[in-house]
Amino acid sequence: MKKVAVLGAGSWGTALAMVLCDNHHQVRLWTHNADQKETMQKTKRNEKYLPDIKLPSNIEIFTDLEKAVDNVEAIVFVVPAKAIRQTCQKVLPFLSDDIILIHGSKGIEPDSHYRISEMMEEELANINFRGVVALSGPSHAEEVSLKHPTTVTAASKNDMAAKYTQDLFINEYFRVYTSKDIVGVELGGALKNIIALGAGISDGLGYGDNAKAALITRGLAEISRLAAVLGANPLTFSGLSGVGDLIVTCTSVHSRNWRAGNLFGKGQKLKEVLDQMGMTVEGVRTTEAVYQLSNKLKVEMPITKGIYEVIFEQRSPKDVVDHLMTRNRTTEIEDIASVLVDRYSD
Amino acid sequence: MKKVAVLGAGSWGTALAMVLCDNHHQVRLWTHNADQKETMQKTKRNEKYLPDIKLPSNIEIFTDLEKAVDNVEAIVFVVPAKAIRQTCQKVLPFLSDDIILIHGSKGIEPDSHYRISEMMEEELANINFRGVVALSGPSHAEEVSLKHPTTVTAASKNDMAAKYTQDLFINEYFRVYTSKDIVGVELGGALKNIIALGAGISDGLGYGDNAKAALITRGLAEISRLAAVLGANPLTFSGLSGVGDLIVTCTSVHSRNWRAGNLFGKGQKLKEVLDQMGMTVEGVRTTEAVYQLSNKLKVEMPITKGIYEVIFEQRSPKDVVDHLMTRNRTTEIEDIASVLVDRYSD
Repeated sequence: MKKVAVLGAGSWGTALAMVLCDNHHQVRLWTHNADQKETMQKTKRNEKYLPDIKLPSNIEIFTDLEKAVDNVEAIVFVVPAKAIRQTCQKVLPFLSDDIILIHGSKGIEPDSHYRISEMMEEELANINFRGVVALSGPSHAEEVSLKHPTTVTAASKNDMAAKYTQDLFINEYFRVYTSKDIVGVELGGALKNIIALGAGISDGLGYGDNAKAALITRGLAEISRLAAVLGANPLTFSGLSGVGDLIVTCTSVHSRNWRAGNLFGKGQKLKEVLDQMGMTVEGVRTTEAVYQLSNKLKVEMPITKGIYEVIFEQRSPKDVVDHLMTRNRTTEIEDIASVLVDRYSD
Repeated sequence: MKKVAVLGAGSWGTALAMVLCDNHHQVRLWTHNADQKETMQKTKRNEKYLPDIKLPSNIEIFTDLEKAVDNVEAIVFVVPAKAIRQTCQKVLPFLSDDIILIHGSKGIEPDSHYRISEMMEEELANINFRGVVALSGPSHAEEVSLKHPTTVTAASKNDMAAKYTQDLFINEYFRVYTSKDIVGVELGGALKNIIALGAGISDGLGYGDNAKAALITRGLAEISRLAAVLGANPLTFSGLSGVGDLIVTCTSVHSRNWRAGNLFGKGQKLKEVLDQMGMTVEGVRTTEAVYQLSNKLKVEMPITKGIYEVIFEQRSPKDVVDHLMTRNRTTEIEDIASVLVDRYSD
């Protein structure tokens, strides 16, 4: 039994805390919202994010961050990407050396283009932590809370930290693989949202499964290409945090990014789409960041460019798709293969 | 304008013939069925396979094989896998050297474990043909006939033949990529049906998107592993004829293999499933062939093995999935990476 804090009581944070409770760990779930804490303690449910699920009796809920992380071996950050730095700053005074830092967040910081773990490493540089681990994969929180079979990847530059995370979470319905490629795993989780927007645009235009499969597949190829330039192993994109997560996101009508894309495909403009969604659409920010990054690094990303133009330059989605279909003829795999030759031949 | 014969007037053969007509080629569509020919000529529709579509006026329909292939530059075989050898034997006497052979069929021959192109090469060895090309990708025939955007791969050991096929078919709604990896493209098209069965089993058990995404992703990893041992480039499985085709097959309730898997997941046995389907389920034969092949080549394929046991050994689907979830802990990508190092480092 280990003492673990989960920071963030959204659907995914709550589901991960439930897995840890099932594994007989001592789990503290932290929320910044006092009302939410009170309701959860009273009703034994997370009414807002997982309303149908009864919380385990042994889960402890905190709003006091110092108490939540007191004497824990590991902390699992499951806050929105934009709240990562602030949460790190708040928790820093209470951390001791040797702590394991795990996160289940997805996104890329605008301007800096930092991944989640890079922000964490920068903010927590004063601590001698034992490693930063990204936990990512095809995982609707609702299904995990129902104990439906789910697989994820625990990725870290630090093997020991990845294995520790695997041991912590693995059980008969939650299977955890390890990976050294945290760059690829984090980029897969973030960049897949661009492709989900594209899948929604294609469906919004009334195109069929063939077009959507093409967009997903070619989109996967171009995000792998960018990720390889950024130091990821392109093979990670054939795995759970790449194609696995992408399949779940692009084929579920519950995906926020797919729904936003669908509205763009039907001809709506950015302001209308955001008004109608009424919440952050992570893929919109990610598209902007990655479009800039591809220009800076001179990586060809025609699908990302097309989606950027639809969102930010009011280009007609149909024009964009037609343009993508009539680009120069190319061969399919040589571009990725050349990256792999560079990586594996030395 | 080129003279081309398409052998096989099912939905896919008819759709490919329509693409060629759109590209202003002289197209002869051959069917062995005289009734079908007569109806198609009379109604200008393919009532059985693409009932909602009007055929182009310039399409010519034949039952006489000699006349169909007379003086053509290329032949496109779109007959079921089990009819490939027989069709080759029938057409052989009428072929001249320098012909280009293209096929759009999927499957692996039982016992020999030959791919489609290998059967064609064996049967047509007396001809000095200019190359054999496999055309494969995520492509519901109905959508192609409606001119919805579609992408496919033309793969051949012979570059010139692949480029010829690309030129022949490419247009504004049908985008063709070339590949040298015909082994990978053919194996992807055939082996994906095993994974589609698995996706159906998972859905039939009532499991969610997480489980299905895991099955698809890990299934893709193991068919890539087998294919690499058979000489394919594992990267092909990240492309249109791999993950692309898999997405279409595993997420469409129209997929025959998914539907059969769904019945197995609900507890039905092989005989009941085949009776209820009332037609060939290609994935059942492919599962048997690939299970044997994996034993022979000593390639670990736990998902294929599990599906084999459900189909042929009456093992409970739930047992199989639970067993897959509690296997030894492993890392995610090293097994494929090791194959790539071998392939690309010399």
